[in-house]
Amino acid sequence: MEGKTVLRLWSAALLVILPLMTKSLENGLARTPPMGWLAWERFRCNTDCVNDPDNCISERLFMQMSDLLVSEGYAAVGYEYINVDDCYLAKTRDAQGRLQPDPERFPSGMRALSNYVRFDFNDSEVKIEWVGLEDLLTFDLLQVHAKGLKFGIYEDYGNYTCAGYPGILGHLEADANTFADWAVDYVKLDGCYSHPVDMDRGYPEFGYYLNQTGRPMMYSCSWPVYQIYSGIEPNFTAIKGACNLWRNFDDIQDSWQSIQTIIDYYGENQDAIVPNAGPGHWNDPDMLIVGNFGLSFEQSKSQFALWAIWASPLLMSVDLRTIKPDYKAILQNRKIIAVNQDILGIQGRRIYKDRGIEIWARPITPVVRADFSYAIVFLNRRTDGTPSEVSVINRELGLTHEAGYRVEDLYTNKDYGILSPDDKITVDVNPSGCVMLRFTVASAFQKQLIPFGHASTLNQDKRALPQRLQWLSRFPSLARSLEVGEKDN
Amino acid sequence: MEGKTVLRLWSAALLVILPLMTKSLENGLARTPPMGWLAWERFRCNTDCVNDPDNCISERLFMQMSDLLVSEGYAAVGYEYINVDDCYLAKTRDAQGRLQPDPERFPSGMRALSNYVRFDFNDSEVKIEWVGLEDLLTFDLLQVHAKGLKFGIYEDYGNYTCAGYPGILGHLEADANTFADWAVDYVKLDGCYSHPVDMDRGYPEFGYYLNQTGRPMMYSCSWPVYQIYSGIEPNFTAIKGACNLWRNFDDIQDSWQSIQTIIDYYGENQDAIVPNAGPGHWNDPDMLIVGNFGLSFEQSKSQFALWAIWASPLLMSVDLRTIKPDYKAILQNRKIIAVNQDILGIQGRRIYKDRGIEIWARPITPVVRADFSYAIVFLNRRTDGTPSEVSVINRELGLTHEAGYRVEDLYTNKDYGILSPDDKITVDVNPSGCVMLRFTVASAFQKQLIPFGHASTLNQDKRALPQRLQWLSRFPSLARSLEVGEKDN
Repeated sequence: MEGKTVLRLWSAALLVILPLMTKSLENGLARTPPMGWLAWERFRCNTDCVNDPDNCISERLFMQMSDLLVSEGYAAVGYEYINVDDCYLAKTRDAQGRLQPDPERFPSGMRALSNYVRFDFNDSEVKIEWVGLEDLLTFDLLQVHAKGLKFGIYEDYGNYTCAGYPGILGHLEADANTFADWAVDYVKLDGCYSHPVDMDRGYPEFGYYLNQTGRPMMYSCSWPVYQIYSGIEPNFTAIKGACNLWRNFDDIQDSWQSIQTIIDYYGENQDAIVPNAGPGHWNDPDMLIVGNFGLSFEQSKSQFALWAIWASPLLMSVDLRTIKPDYKAILQNRKIIAVNQDILGIQGRRIYKDRGIEIWARPITPVVRADFSYAIVFLNRRTDGTPSEVSVINRELGLTHEAGYRVEDLYTNKDYGILSPDDKITVDVNPSGCVMLRFTVASAFQKQLIPFGHASTLNQDKRALPQRLQWLSRFPSLARSLEVGEKDN
Repeated sequence: MEGKTVLRLWSAALLVILPLMTKSLENGLARTPPMGWLAWERFRCNTDCVNDPDNCISERLFMQMSDLLVSEGYAAVGYEYINVDDCYLAKTRDAQGRLQPDPERFPSGMRALSNYVRFDFNDSEVKIEWVGLEDLLTFDLLQVHAKGLKFGIYEDYGNYTCAGYPGILGHLEADANTFADWAVDYVKLDGCYSHPVDMDRGYPEFGYYLNQTGRPMMYSCSWPVYQIYSGIEPNFTAIKGACNLWRNFDDIQDSWQSIQTIIDYYGENQDAIVPNAGPGHWNDPDMLIVGNFGLSFEQSKSQFALWAIWASPLLMSVDLRTIKPDYKAILQNRKIIAVNQDILGIQGRRIYKDRGIEIWARPITPVVRADFSYAIVFLNRRTDGTPSEVSVINRELGLTHEAGYRVEDLYTNKDYGILSPDDKITVDVNPSGCVMLRFTVASAFQKQLIPFGHASTLNQDKRALPQRLQWLSRFPSLARSLEVGEKDN
């Protein structure tokens, strides 16, 4: 009963949000790429809570991660979703045909977990009992002690999830309502055990039922990737209209090799991929694996930089209890997060690729007199042991703003001062590492206004916002082969 | 003149050493695999001392590394060689046809650098002037302030080195004498710009001239790898008789991918490779890249563990000025170095490989009543994000000593106590990581003698040393497929 009251309140809230929405998916969410934590890549389908209680998929794991998201400063820089993935469900539905979590591993239930993630309790025991009182309306309205986090869930448009738990096929409306009852904020819908041809109907249909609940739930789809694997060309107009984000390539694995296949995919298919991204609808290259077992420090910086260039969802899948400080600092780099979250929402492109060196560029705010600022990533995919020196004239990168750019290294914080379009920039790029620079347009009047080291805090000049699609065809690639310091004779 | 006096003294020393030598290469060196530092993988052919003075191939770089080898504790755990690689030479020989270093980058000359590496100077300026006095004999005899380090050099059996500097072809005897004059302790002879068919004659010939100088110089050959690439089957009997170590596979690069190709090569070809290794003559899978840009912490531990199992030379190629403490600790792990340096000198084998899990085993001292102790590496080459649990009965690993084994984790120092052959051992192995255990035979009388945590300091029981070849055919592989915790449904 309380659940329905909550729903009505959310519907009222939607009316306020509606005027802000675009032509895409009409849930008002994901104006910038979602940020949060997702269990899968690091914790997989470990259901052995008897022998491995600290790492199995259980409510305790998600409670711990939500606590750490706040206490370790991740929430403060923008990470807000705590997302459950596969293997949380019981193997069967309940007597009423509803989804139910595994009773041993999620004894408090999903609504309790959702509330735990959302609110701040000094004593989790007390909290779970209190939820037992079903005093949930007061809970939602007060929002005192709010942690500010949101709760995400996983399901599958098929007979089973990928790990063999009940799928939603045949239960679309009921399951959407269950998720609303659980106070879910984010639904990842996988595509195992279903027919990719059916997805053109099924994914929008489930999205419709999600919207019908009245509760805004971000909608993450696996629709295009399953179709691509089946040789079907995805209808991205439909996908953008139904989903806030979607996977179009392989599951990420814990290796630089996996990251490299994703980089190649995003680079080689950018003409098809990039135009689909924008506020409310994003390409999803899968989770951040920074801080796990397979990436070096340099490789971790490269993943984070590229995910920012691509306007990708930033979904960490890492053990926040044990991550080392160096890697935590990558995930909490505010300047790079600001690039990822840039309000223009333009996905960047690879504008150069030769002999293992790539340059990626993303237009960002502030924009002055139709000239964008840019985030630029110099990526070194060579393995020849020693840094490569890369030099390029700014104008060749498309940096033509005549008043120049304030240039700053987003990892080292090195300030290059103001550089003109005809200045040359030279960077040393470590093997499997990157250098990420921010070029902030410095018009004559702004030159005095930018405080040293604060270029990335500028606001957009809204008077001269150009068409975002204009950029997309502007720099197909650099005209010449760059000089790269060759030290491996 | 002083040089000749030194040579005579060394010849006299050789007479003392001779009775200790085996049937292999008769220089008495490399009774255990050499340990040291080698420039190539990390610093390559960077000759730009104008723009990159800190990282270019120059005497300054090698002086710094020799200082750090001592001051940072590497020398204390066994690293003793400071090895120059390609790109130190001038492009032409001197007026007398002798090799000479690049005068800009090695202004003090190679003999001065060799002495710097060998001895301890409070002020390097003073030292270089002093060497200028050519008072070298006193130098060698006194050996006061000895750093304890040794000096290695690079050349190529061809017209040119791989980077295009003068090769030794046509100058074999003169160049061997030059190296002796430079007080070289270790020669790596590459094989670019030469014909692999000629190597069967050329490598032994140069080795002969090295021996003729009377100065013991370790001899590192690239002979087999160039022959294998040319489709020639190497004559390892000849190679073992001429070389202290030899490369038989690709140059290592700064990536886990590169390490994995080496692991595969050593695993797939172990029946041919393993029997060639032993005191005085070693397979060389190339440098350690721990602490560079391309390996994660787990991958770094895996490289070091396998290089110990393989009785490989431990030649670090890393910037000792900037290496992070975690990675330095791997390189200085005394217990794993003790496995690498085990006096039996038996190269280990892969005894299990299935679904991404490999088990590698090396028989080591102490040996009691014909039963070896063992170093065992459980390697996880999976990338599925979460540790894999591997369980095996000790007896299946060939651990059949009825009195049992003291078992210790060489990275975590976890002590498993005494385990019997029928006990089961269970380890959690991180993706791209390993668990390295030492099983030390615990005979009844030893059980009381092994102090807690000191299993690896035991000496060999020489009364019962079995034939080393006996082991080589003993464990072709495990009989069954192990249970591995599968969490990636």
